Amino acid sequence: MGKKFVSLTNLNFLLYDVHGLKEILNHHYYRHQDKQAVDLMIESAIKISEKYLLPFMSEMDKKPPELVNGEVVTHPKIAKLIKAMGDGGWFCASASLENGGMQIPLMVDTAANFVFQAANNGTYGFTGLNAGAANLILEFASTELKEEYVPKLHSGKWQGTMALTEPQAGSSLGDITSTAYSTGQDGIYKIKGQKVFISAGDYEHPENIVHMMLARIEGEPEGSKGISLFVVPKYRSEKKKLVSNDVKTAGIFHKMGQKATPTVHLAFGEKNNCFGYLVGDKNQGLNYMFKLMNEARISVGIGAAGMMSMAYYAALEYANERPQGRKIGDKEGEQINIIEHADIKRMLLKQKSILEGSLSLILQCANFADLVKTKEGDLRDHYQLLLDLLTPVVKTCPSERGIEAVSDALQCLGGYGYCEDFELEQLYRDIRITPIYEGTTGIQSLDLLGRKVLMENGKAMQLLAKEFEFAVRDARYYEELNDILPLFEDGAAELKKVTHHLLAFAMKNKLDRFLADATIYMELFGLVCLGWQWLKQGTVITEACRKNVENLENPFHLGKIQTMKYFFTYEFPRVKSLTETLMNDADLTLGTDKSWLE
Amino acid sequence: MGKKFVSLTNLNFLLYDVHGLKEILNHHYYRHQDKQAVDLMIESAIKISEKYLLPFMSEMDKKPPELVNGEVVTHPKIAKLIKAMGDGGWFCASASLENGGMQIPLMVDTAANFVFQAANNGTYGFTGLNAGAANLILEFASTELKEEYVPKLHSGKWQGTMALTEPQAGSSLGDITSTAYSTGQDGIYKIKGQKVFISAGDYEHPENIVHMMLARIEGEPEGSKGISLFVVPKYRSEKKKLVSNDVKTAGIFHKMGQKATPTVHLAFGEKNNCFGYLVGDKNQGLNYMFKLMNEARISVGIGAAGMMSMAYYAALEYANERPQGRKIGDKEGEQINIIEHADIKRMLLKQKSILEGSLSLILQCANFADLVKTKEGDLRDHYQLLLDLLTPVVKTCPSERGIEAVSDALQCLGGYGYCEDFELEQLYRDIRITPIYEGTTGIQSLDLLGRKVLMENGKAMQLLAKEFEFAVRDARYYEELNDILPLFEDGAAELKKVTHHLLAFAMKNKLDRFLADATIYMELFGLVCLGWQWLKQGTVITEACRKNVENLENPFHLGKIQTMKYFFTYEFPRVKSLTETLMNDADLTLGTDKSWLE
Repeated sequence: MGKKFVSLTNLNFLLYDVHGLKEILNHHYYRHQDKQAVDLMIESAIKISEKYLLPFMSEMDKKPPELVNGEVVTHPKIAKLIKAMGDGGWFCASASLENGGMQIPLMVDTAANFVFQAANNGTYGFTGLNAGAANLILEFASTELKEEYVPKLHSGKWQGTMALTEPQAGSSLGDITSTAYSTGQDGIYKIKGQKVFISAGDYEHPENIVHMMLARIEGEPEGSKGISLFVVPKYRSEKKKLVSNDVKTAGIFHKMGQKATPTVHLAFGEKNNCFGYLVGDKNQGLNYMFKLMNEARISVGIGAAGMMSMAYYAALEYANERPQGRKIGDKEGEQINIIEHADIKRMLLKQKSILEGSLSLILQCANFADLVKTKEGDLRDHYQLLLDLLTPVVKTCPSERGIEAVSDALQCLGGYGYCEDFELEQLYRDIRITPIYEGTTGIQSLDLLGRKVLMENGKAMQLLAKEFEFAVRDARYYEELNDILPLFEDGAAELKKVTHHLLAFAMKNKLDRFLADATIYMELFGLVCLGWQWLKQGTVITEACRKNVENLENPFHLGKIQTMKYFFTYEFPRVKSLTETLMNDADLTLGTDKSWLE
Repeated sequence: MGKKFVSLTNLNFLLYDVHGLKEILNHHYYRHQDKQAVDLMIESAIKISEKYLLPFMSEMDKKPPELVNGEVVTHPKIAKLIKAMGDGGWFCASASLENGGMQIPLMVDTAANFVFQAANNGTYGFTGLNAGAANLILEFASTELKEEYVPKLHSGKWQGTMALTEPQAGSSLGDITSTAYSTGQDGIYKIKGQKVFISAGDYEHPENIVHMMLARIEGEPEGSKGISLFVVPKYRSEKKKLVSNDVKTAGIFHKMGQKATPTVHLAFGEKNNCFGYLVGDKNQGLNYMFKLMNEARISVGIGAAGMMSMAYYAALEYANERPQGRKIGDKEGEQINIIEHADIKRMLLKQKSILEGSLSLILQCANFADLVKTKEGDLRDHYQLLLDLLTPVVKTCPSERGIEAVSDALQCLGGYGYCEDFELEQLYRDIRITPIYEGTTGIQSLDLLGRKVLMENGKAMQLLAKEFEFAVRDARYYEELNDILPLFEDGAAELKKVTHHLLAFAMKNKLDRFLADATIYMELFGLVCLGWQWLKQGTVITEACRKNVENLENPFHLGKIQTMKYFFTYEFPRVKSLTETLMNDADLTLGTDKSWLE
């Protein structure tokens, strides 16, 4: 590896030692894979990243796509990147063998996704959506649609998109006005409408662009229950030829970051010549789309972890090479590199604690997803509930905390961090999208508290509490963790207390009060989940040091232990202040009249 | 006023009702001023802002200065802006009448500075440094230098700069290598050296550029005690003509934000033909420069508050106009504007609490500076100590918390906040410089804990504790504040406890441990200071409501009370977690070996 942007040692530690990838690989569903194959795949993800992603990160930021004579023109390397990813099988990695996929564990797919997004997050709009669109068609669409679209999406010859948001509706998908008119032919509709913020929604390279689009069939109910899902291609097939399907790029968004991917405004059916193909049953669009949205949400968390990773190693490299200042109290001594200063170490430990805590949480969810695939019955449902509960958290916590981590990485470089000479300023701009797209933090928080916590009478929360207990039980064997363990137990208890406090409002049917502080609740929830993951990592590493005392001199092991201690000393205490805020009994936000804010 | 970017009501409330500008104006030093004159000045600052600053904020960001054939070319409106500011007397506002200034209270100068920086912070590099350079010359330089430079700086015909940082030294000014060689003539030296990150360090409009430059006279001691201050102009006067002084622009920095002002790399004396004029005594350079640095540090805090203000009103406007979603539990109802959602209200209250708390803290410091000017003897020293103590805080707290506030403003706009159509993404980039320039947060925190807290055996801290007591005493009259008062008192007690805990390390001469968590200490200190300012505002507003019950229906008054409550419920509890972290007895950061971070 050239420039370091991810730690393979840490990735393997999390995959195998903490989250049990080996047990997953032993399952018959993944029998065609083994550790060696997995290692090769991750190696190949790093190679693709080093060849097609990393070297162009800055260039793609400086020369963003433009709309030239109605056509979106992207960076010349994009086509090569997509071909390489398609040839490597990365658009069908998690799809089943029978559907032409590679059927690799989601943990491995997630690890590779992390590598790709660390290397050049701005291109994720191209590469992340193909697999998602294909999976959606595979799961819900007719055989004809599958046969027509999936192989092209898997190969990367065609580009997939998610076409949800409309200018007037924003996060409120029930208010979309895109409409599908019956043509009389079964499953074929004429489409009219506008969609905004469509990533990779149009550009010059692919033979076709396939929009997974939400629209309301004329005459169907208002609100979210009348929304259907359509495949709406840029070019439709007529007599075995591709002809224009009346999808026009009405504009391109100029964004603060994430510039490699074009984000466009699309107009469908302006000439009344746009056809859409119904996926599954009518009025089930939102339910279907949730599958893709859930994958996309987890990918946002992965991306945030990726950007943190790139930022961390850039800051570390700088801190190791930049001489400035002296040791405290040693005015006449030699200059030292800034990594020797306590405040720089603190900022690096903070970044490492958020990055490695987030990545562990992400792989924990991928593990649950693999368990859903490989278990049956109640156990399967149990992991599905855990995955559903954690999906908004794994989207939000790495995003929100990742902004802090990348900001601290930038800060390590001082004035140089603010200039284009280093990648930090770009990462700072790039990562700011993560709490916005695929549902803002506010929306994720409403989903967590208002939907997920309530699921099946709180069963998911009970299962998570069990997971916390398992982690505590495992940690209790090690006196080395005696100082840390009660901190986590207190945090978990605080989360439980707060949850009960808020649920009391729901019981009294004060739904608005129940949800008013959902975002603060999300912050607490995420923090406790990071604590959970650090406790798990700490337990595994302590066991490794007991098994082999030489590990007590291994920088990787010592770094893990120190970062865990840092996390519980510097980050985890926030649990207390968040709890105090959440236990307040005032109606402060709800009770604020808008005129008071003028 | 057209588009709202500051609240004049709030500014007047803070100036007169909270911080006693009237008493300052009553002092004979300011006898030539009165409230009416002050109102007119602030009005004129708003008019200049609306004409020359606000309309070009985005344009100046999109077309940053460029180096063309060795000359820095800026936006065409810059020359007009500087002329208007010079004609308005803004470069000599705080200078004394005898020195050709307007001798206005620093509180008023600060309020105007806030308005200018709110309207277009990116231009502050041009307009903020002239007054500072002139003040430095006035205070320390010879009559000849004063006569030659000050009138030109005051009029805006010449541009002033601060030339401190060097590529190899960064924050460690003792390590600068720029050198001054004796010419045999008294006070005149030949200069050689490189300076980086020089704001407004070169551009096409001014007749001359005047660098306040730090350099070491050849043969003088190493480290900070051998540094002298020089005036080094771009063009020097020879036989009443301006001739080139061998100052070359070696490069221009490409920054993430703050793009209106060129930030350049300067090479002095490459042709051995650069002359510098010693200011005051030799080897006193850092002491003198601290005057300008202190002004600049406070101005950074003001700028952060300014950007928060612009961002807040932009988010508020959007939230009031953007329909999206429905009330909780009202799926069939009418769409509402997003300002009706609890989470949007929470984000607006957060911004308002940080903005108005910061601005109050800034004006508190300006008030102390005015008291230094108008009091004598012990009382004067007392206010000077308070000002010295709070200078790093007033630089850092609005900067660090301002980033959060602007980020939340951006978040209110969702995907649109991330796009160039609105000013939020620019403000998000612009404000990120504030914890970096004029000394990073790490440096400010070392100054606070390692220098200011220790001054005169902790006298400044005792004086601040007295100020807290005064605020508590005043608040105690009002039962309306019964819930808030103990929260603040606890916070102030925690700060005291933590200070003693850390001082114990200093006593034991463990200086590195004493300072290891200085940045966390700064965060706690800033938070308690914001609490102090909110308590003061709450007291004044409660008194106003008692005096006139109609105020209990005044949105301004209700908004203040609600924002104070928000602050103490949602922000102030962080005191607890910061205290817990600071009371830890591990050597976590110091004890981390750099190899553990790989």
